[in-house]
Amino acid sequence: MLAEMTGLNEECGVFGVFGHPEAIQLTYYSLHSMQHRGQEGAGMVISDQVHMQQVKGEGLVTEVFHEDLLKTLSGSASIGHVRYSTAGGGGYENVQPLFFKTHTHSLALAHNGNLTNAIAMREQLERDGSIFQTSSDTEVLAHLIRKHNSLSFKDQIKQSLPMLEGAFAFLIMTEDQMIAALDPLGMRPLSLGKIDGAWAVASETCAFDVIGAEYVREVEPGEMVIIDDEGIRSEYYTKQTERALCSMEYVYFARPDSNVDGLNIHSTRKMLGKQLAKEAFVEADVVTGVPDSSISAAIGFAEESNTPYELGLIKNRYVGRTFIKPSQELREKGVQMKLSPVRKIVEGKRVVMVDDSIVRGTTSKKIVSMLREAGAKEVHVRISSPPITNPCYYGIDTSSAGELIAAKRNVAEICQLIGADSLSYLSIDGMLEAIGRPSSMKNCGQCLACFTGNYPTEIHDHTVRPHEKISLI
Amino acid sequence: MLAEMTGLNEECGVFGVFGHPEAIQLTYYSLHSMQHRGQEGAGMVISDQVHMQQVKGEGLVTEVFHEDLLKTLSGSASIGHVRYSTAGGGGYENVQPLFFKTHTHSLALAHNGNLTNAIAMREQLERDGSIFQTSSDTEVLAHLIRKHNSLSFKDQIKQSLPMLEGAFAFLIMTEDQMIAALDPLGMRPLSLGKIDGAWAVASETCAFDVIGAEYVREVEPGEMVIIDDEGIRSEYYTKQTERALCSMEYVYFARPDSNVDGLNIHSTRKMLGKQLAKEAFVEADVVTGVPDSSISAAIGFAEESNTPYELGLIKNRYVGRTFIKPSQELREKGVQMKLSPVRKIVEGKRVVMVDDSIVRGTTSKKIVSMLREAGAKEVHVRISSPPITNPCYYGIDTSSAGELIAAKRNVAEICQLIGADSLSYLSIDGMLEAIGRPSSMKNCGQCLACFTGNYPTEIHDHTVRPHEKISLI
Amino acid sequence: MLAEMTGLNEECGVFGVFGHPEAIQLTYYSLHSMQHRGQEGAGMVISDQVHMQQVKGEGLVTEVFHEDLLKTLSGSASIGHVRYSTAGGGGYENVQPLFFKTHTHSLALAHNGNLTNAIAMREQLERDGSIFQTSSDTEVLAHLIRKHNSLSFKDQIKQSLPMLEGAFAFLIMTEDQMIAALDPLGMRPLSLGKIDGAWAVASETCAFDVIGAEYVREVEPGEMVIIDDEGIRSEYYTKQTERALCSMEYVYFARPDSNVDGLNIHSTRKMLGKQLAKEAFVEADVVTGVPDSSISAAIGFAEESNTPYELGLIKNRYVGRTFIKPSQELREKGVQMKLSPVRKIVEGKRVVMVDDSIVRGTTSKKIVSMLREAGAKEVHVRISSPPITNPCYYGIDTSSAGELIAAKRNVAEICQLIGADSLSYLSIDGMLEAIGRPSSMKNCGQCLACFTGNYPTEIHDHTVRPHEKISLI
Amino acid sequence: MLAEMTGLNEECGVFGVFGHPEAIQLTYYSLHSMQHRGQEGAGMVISDQVHMQQVKGEGLVTEVFHEDLLKTLSGSASIGHVRYSTAGGGGYENVQPLFFKTHTHSLALAHNGNLTNAIAMREQLERDGSIFQTSSDTEVLAHLIRKHNSLSFKDQIKQSLPMLEGAFAFLIMTEDQMIAALDPLGMRPLSLGKIDGAWAVASETCAFDVIGAEYVREVEPGEMVIIDDEGIRSEYYTKQTERALCSMEYVYFARPDSNVDGLNIHSTRKMLGKQLAKEAFVEADVVTGVPDSSISAAIGFAEESNTPYELGLIKNRYVGRTFIKPSQELREKGVQMKLSPVRKIVEGKRVVMVDDSIVRGTTSKKIVSMLREAGAKEVHVRISSPPITNPCYYGIDTSSAGELIAAKRNVAEICQLIGADSLSYLSIDGMLEAIGRPSSMKNCGQCLACFTGNYPTEIHDHTVRPHEKISLI
Repeated sequence: MLAEMTGLNEECGVFGVFGHPEAIQLTYYSLHSMQHRGQEGAGMVISDQVHMQQVKGEGLVTEVFHEDLLKTLSGSASIGHVRYSTAGGGGYENVQPLFFKTHTHSLALAHNGNLTNAIAMREQLERDGSIFQTSSDTEVLAHLIRKHNSLSFKDQIKQSLPMLEGAFAFLIMTEDQMIAALDPLGMRPLSLGKIDGAWAVASETCAFDVIGAEYVREVEPGEMVIIDDEGIRSEYYTKQTERALCSMEYVYFARPDSNVDGLNIHSTRKMLGKQLAKEAFVEADVVTGVPDSSISAAIGFAEESNTPYELGLIKNRYVGRTFIKPSQELREKGVQMKLSPVRKIVEGKRVVMVDDSIVRGTTSKKIVSMLREAGAKEVHVRISSPPITNPCYYGIDTSSAGELIAAKRNVAEICQLIGADSLSYLSIDGMLEAIGRPSSMKNCGQCLACFTGNYPTEIHDHTVRPHEKISLI
Repeated sequence: MLAEMTGLNEECGVFGVFGHPEAIQLTYYSLHSMQHRGQEGAGMVISDQVHMQQVKGEGLVTEVFHEDLLKTLSGSASIGHVRYSTAGGGGYENVQPLFFKTHTHSLALAHNGNLTNAIAMREQLERDGSIFQTSSDTEVLAHLIRKHNSLSFKDQIKQSLPMLEGAFAFLIMTEDQMIAALDPLGMRPLSLGKIDGAWAVASETCAFDVIGAEYVREVEPGEMVIIDDEGIRSEYYTKQTERALCSMEYVYFARPDSNVDGLNIHSTRKMLGKQLAKEAFVEADVVTGVPDSSISAAIGFAEESNTPYELGLIKNRYVGRTFIKPSQELREKGVQMKLSPVRKIVEGKRVVMVDDSIVRGTTSKKIVSMLREAGAKEVHVRISSPPITNPCYYGIDTSSAGELIAAKRNVAEICQLIGADSLSYLSIDGMLEAIGRPSSMKNCGQCLACFTGNYPTEIHDHTVRPHEKISLI
Repeated sequence: MLAEMTGLNEECGVFGVFGHPEAIQLTYYSLHSMQHRGQEGAGMVISDQVHMQQVKGEGLVTEVFHEDLLKTLSGSASIGHVRYSTAGGGGYENVQPLFFKTHTHSLALAHNGNLTNAIAMREQLERDGSIFQTSSDTEVLAHLIRKHNSLSFKDQIKQSLPMLEGAFAFLIMTEDQMIAALDPLGMRPLSLGKIDGAWAVASETCAFDVIGAEYVREVEPGEMVIIDDEGIRSEYYTKQTERALCSMEYVYFARPDSNVDGLNIHSTRKMLGKQLAKEAFVEADVVTGVPDSSISAAIGFAEESNTPYELGLIKNRYVGRTFIKPSQELREKGVQMKLSPVRKIVEGKRVVMVDDSIVRGTTSKKIVSMLREAGAKEVHVRISSPPITNPCYYGIDTSSAGELIAAKRNVAEICQLIGADSLSYLSIDGMLEAIGRPSSMKNCGQCLACFTGNYPTEIHDHTVRPHEKISLI
Repeated sequence: MLAEMTGLNEECGVFGVFGHPEAIQLTYYSLHSMQHRGQEGAGMVISDQVHMQQVKGEGLVTEVFHEDLLKTLSGSASIGHVRYSTAGGGGYENVQPLFFKTHTHSLALAHNGNLTNAIAMREQLERDGSIFQTSSDTEVLAHLIRKHNSLSFKDQIKQSLPMLEGAFAFLIMTEDQMIAALDPLGMRPLSLGKIDGAWAVASETCAFDVIGAEYVREVEPGEMVIIDDEGIRSEYYTKQTERALCSMEYVYFARPDSNVDGLNIHSTRKMLGKQLAKEAFVEADVVTGVPDSSISAAIGFAEESNTPYELGLIKNRYVGRTFIKPSQELREKGVQMKLSPVRKIVEGKRVVMVDDSIVRGTTSKKIVSMLREAGAKEVHVRISSPPITNPCYYGIDTSSAGELIAAKRNVAEICQLIGADSLSYLSIDGMLEAIGRPSSMKNCGQCLACFTGNYPTEIHDHTVRPHEKISLI
């Protein structure tokens, strides 16, 4: 429930393909398959080797790209982006890919992740006379690249990336070249694929499945993959690398049918659910998951605990941007929109409600209360990840620690606050075991900052002014 | 998969509330909860006891009703409709409620179902000088009512309804009265509820849950429920009644959290899946359902057959009206949009794929093929209802028998056509037992016409001109 | 200034063409040329001899008809309408042509004018069971036609028209026939033309000029012109005819380049201005007209009085539907939008301001005050028509006599109210002489009701309930 | 006819007001009154002393600014712009005011005119690492300002303006200051006014009239007018000044009710018409002007030549963006949209057709032919300005000399090409005398480059690459 009901900012999704006659269509369908990674805006930049064109807009992929519009475009290389604003706020100009033209050539940038020194870098660049067009952290890279414009394009980037701090998976395109680059800790997923001989890059492998592309490998931490007419080659802008992939990709963010760094998401979540059942079994009549992201964990929990899995909560499709919010008065009378409990399923029953995470706790409290009103005899909440005690500065942006229910409360207090009969979280060790990533020493291969407070990078903008609200403008 | 992927016309959803200060808002949320019953159009007519106002349009509930618009309305009685054109074709004028004004009073009509003598009735009325405004079968009732305009409003309706043939659940409203009426066989569901002392009527009980209304009882076949300032009273326009509720409401149409004639849909579907597992067990590694409507049956099948239930197929949310269809070329290359198989789940596995029904077979064929391409070793299709061998004339409108794959083929032939390793349907008796409705002699309490060809009513328009395409204009 | 600045309802414009391969395009351009006759709505109905299609909408011709839309249509006969609601109020359903379908054939109606017994007729028809679709007076004719549906189409109309009272120019079309009919007094203009061998009918001759059609003759009072594949023929549904053409067509309504009943509008208005100069000369420095409709009269006045004609008032183009009205505060500070005085032209000058009419006087008062603020030494108002003392029931609908400034005030009082140095109207005799229509005894060939109160027809709806606000619903 | 029918790019209009509580509304009405100066886009930037907000869009003032939108804004200082793309091409990002944010403050720019060294300046800035956001020449100034960001804001501008070449009237705004600046030759008009104690600046005085502001004086060539909370003060960024105001402002561009550099436009045009009649009298029956911009000259011609002035040509209002162009076939049949000749006025007559200018000649040819088809016996074309023989690089952008009909043809040849009986242009001396500006030696106070080829400034971008199509990107 983390993303969908808390208003948290999230990560984004990027896709690129180089040297395919259907580049535009492929980008459309791939972005569409990653729509869950960002519903605020979508865009693509296309190159026909000589000219580049941009189409972007606020809204869903199907709202931004219309058939008539795509027909006016042509090109064989394309990068695209779906956005859930991580930094910089909303507005058309912040929708990516960012696109810049100079009298010599053009430049497009698509970014998944969040820089942690963007404010400092921007202030320095502005003092030197740069004018920024957006309030996006991503634009910093464009100005750094231009400052090095005496070098080759590849070297402009090679010189610029080490100046950035934080999490990033970048797709960067000029008329005749595409470069995919990952931060030194590989905090964001980025996969390489192939379709009809052309190379493709995507945040999630479901983007490959939907277009019939073949998965090849992950882009590595610190790596720059350079794709052009001569084919593909790899360089490293730093050798100081190690993997610290975001745990939340496994817990709730990626699509069940994607594989992240080689692990299938549905299976991993089912394992998280099974592990949770081992750690926190409770005698019950039904197990139900909070749709959509907790279904797999709930199935795993049910299987492991030998309790029937049922649809105790129904999600209302069709709640979009234009949906009219119920008045306070009606809400108090019980008008419920996004989720409905199924009375006949839960009435008189002991219910295990499996969710993937708790952020502020307000949603969990609401669901527990809904289930009770529908007649549940007992409600046992089981969370398939550890308590979130610290803000994320890498893209899953819980603006401040103050809002996190687990920042200053123990499990018993949270249980009481959300009104459950019992509450259990998955342990950190249990989570690591269930996911089963190869454990490198320092980071276990994955970032645990939101559970532990140990941030794997510098977080410059946040340490310099810890009490300010961080904003690029 | 019946409704969502075949282009079949479906039934609609109606809602009414009388004497509630929030009538407009309640109608909005109730219609929204029944959005699955019709995405083509939505409308409501509101009365403040003196004047009536109409808002309607093509599209989804959230597209038709905007906050600014609803603010301009006032009234304490309202009827609403979501439409999936059953008869009469598209167009703004056919969106319901139909609304008529005369110099004495106004009249609004909302209809779920399909009349089978509308063409004959319309021709007769036109010969007498009537001018129709729509190509909807529903308008016939309005003209019949006006032809009896010397009687009281209730008696106008009482005289008119017996002239209609087919399936209907009507909500009829004037400035100061609302009447709910059901056809003599009760082929469509219609429930009566109560909220804050006001009476409400809805096609599905999920509409009550979402607004916090309390379910009271079903409207009976042949009954007219009359609601006005003096309260509620019941009359019967015919005593020749018996129940023949549409089986498809249970099989795929209603929402899992609704209760239809007292039976919960999720539980009923799970029973259908269990019964199917008893009748057609097969050794397999995973059971997967075709989302969304077959999930419950798949869970039941898995539980009964002791096979793990997995998310082997993922449905892509966000495929709306403006989605760009892939070119034939891309489709052949494997671009798949609405459903994606999950390779890591099905690869090398024996898969049971549970679906609720097969209409033309094209969708089933596509899914089977998808699963095989994702690496499934075997695909066993299990259908949680009997073969559909005959067209429905009551709202679930399979235009002609010619399109029904089961009309002239046996199960073995269908199995071959869709490319499955094995195919089994649920038996009629198995279905009846799993649903478990109280069996009245002739109709077992439910309509089986699409499985048997025994139509429980006259089907005048279709027998007079069996070879013509039926159209009101 | 009558139409544009008072909010008065006005007449409409109709156009029809039969048997031309470009019927749709011709209708578009003709309606566009008559846009001044109605900016509230536009529509056309097209026939390809077998099917009829309708396109209509609220707004301007260029807003309603888009290229993509017109491309979907085909047909060789078409009737069209531009609407400025005369009766029945706004709303999509009242936009004309009205279009009705029955199981035998279709019927389209376009009407310029206003019936004076529509309410009485409608009540009678509703008592007999008819259901009206609109609140337009025009629909009465459709029901009368259908009530006679045992006759030939032509005879249905021939029987129906004599039951109507008031002003009307009708275009009526079925799949294979078009009928143009005029009321017995010919109160509205209706001209017959020819293009590439096909017959055309239009409210104003500018519609012919714009498409290169040739003017043939006027449709006569009481005449029905019947056009079909066999050519054109004329019948009379009544012999009780006489001409009483609306004077206001000459004074302000028609376009300067049109000829109404053979007389050019610009030339006629110039004659009205000359006659006015003869009757009410005043020593002055400049003559200026209120744009656009009074320019011709002002030029005539200037020429006759030998005073320089100048652009003392400028009309702001681009004031459309979406224009934001200035706040009361800003208006008091002098924010002026539709008309601006030209300071350098009027400063220190004695100004003759020629206008075509005064309805409520508020606009005239505003303009006089504007001119004074811009420095005019004297402002002499000259009106190129007689005082309007009575409401019009035939389409130029001054809702009630109470609003007419001249209903209960003499010229001196009006002069004082609008703040002019002097005010003169044209005399009725002067107007008749300047226009120079052949004088038939009773009506001088033109309707003078708004100047005299002598209505040339029965005005049933207005005499039965003189104190009610007249409304069809 | 220059602007409206040739597709030429034109100048723009700017407006600013500082320190008025109704700044937003005043900007709206002022821009609206200058709509004739640019219909492609409109925008405003508002400051409340602390924050600045921007609203802009493609389309008309009434299309871009909606009431709901303006209500969300607040501020007491505002600059606005209406745009007819002079340089840089279309697109949202080029709509002005341009608006830039840095971490220290914001900057808004509105520009009327055209720089002639923008390309060279941009290339230099990009080589130094600047990234441009638009293809507008105006953006060059923003980067120059930022390069000087160690100075005070006023001095940043004072250092930057001398680096620009060409025609410009700039409004520049930060949170707390507004600066109006004119190029050293004052090629574009810019007036200073006052309203309720607040200072206002506008391209045309009609903008003052419409809001009730009082005209104070012209901004001078080379002057920077600095407005802030301390009031107004004037500085000069250069002393090398002299006036060379664009002649076309008088001939056709400005509104008749504006005064440009103190001279009323309607009166000036009437004088041009009178002078033309003196130079090129012809015996005729009627004088008619091509609406709207040639009406004043035609009235002058008629008065001087003692020939009746008539409405021989009618302009069709309502021809907007969405108007459907007639097919070639229909155009050949005579479908005429923007202008209609009035047959009854010109039939059998000797007609003088007064127009303000001829650019490519295609429009003139069309009008002459229209008049002949409407029956004119003779058509004598009289142009109230000299022949345009050279392209304008200052905002009235006749892309290349090749398109100018007078570039390589004498008057007799042009007369024959447009099919007139006779053709005369106003002489340069006659034009200067009629306008009557105080004659400074070199430039007569006005720019004559398009008539003479003597450009009063360097035209760097056009001399360096005379054969290229000039484009900023």
